[in-house]
Amino acid sequence: MDQQADIRKKFGNRIRTLRTEKGFSQEAFADECGLDRSYMGGVERGQRNIALVNIEKISQALGMSLSELFIL
Amino acid sequence: MDQQADIRKKFGNRIRTLRTEKGFSQEAFADECGLDRSYMGGVERGQRNIALVNIEKISQALGMSLSELFIL
Repeated sequence: MDQQADIRKKFGNRIRTLRTEKGFSQEAFADECGLDRSYMGGVERGQRNIALVNIEKISQALGMSLSELFIL
Repeated sequence: MDQQADIRKKFGNRIRTLRTEKGFSQEAFADECGLDRSYMGGVERGQRNIALVNIEKISQALGMSLSELFIL
C-alpha cells in the first residue's frame, strides 16, 4: 500500500470505528454530516482524499475536536 | 466569515505559526513538504480546502502527528 492510500485508509477506519461506536448507520451518519451517502462510503473505504471542510463536518457530527478525530 | 472559510483560515494560521517556529521560509517549507509554493501560500491564507494526503505531507515536514497538528 502506498503512503497516500495508507493515510486515507487509516482515516477511513477511524471514521468507521467512531461512527459505529456512536450507533450511526453509514446512511444516517452521512445525513448527519450533510454529506452524500456514497461519498461517505468511499471515505470509510479509504478511496477518497477528503478535504478540510468535510473533515470538519464529520468532527462536528461526532461531537469531537479535529485533534481527537485524528488520533489514528 | 462563513464556517467553511473559518476552518480553512484556522488551519492556515496553525501551519504558518508552526512553520515559522521551525524557522522555515514559506518557500523552503513548501519544498520540504513536496508541495507547490503558491499552493502553500494559499493554504496559509485559508484559501485552499486542503485534503488529507497533503495535510499528512505537512505533518511529516513538521515532524508532528496529525492530532498535534490539529490543535487549532
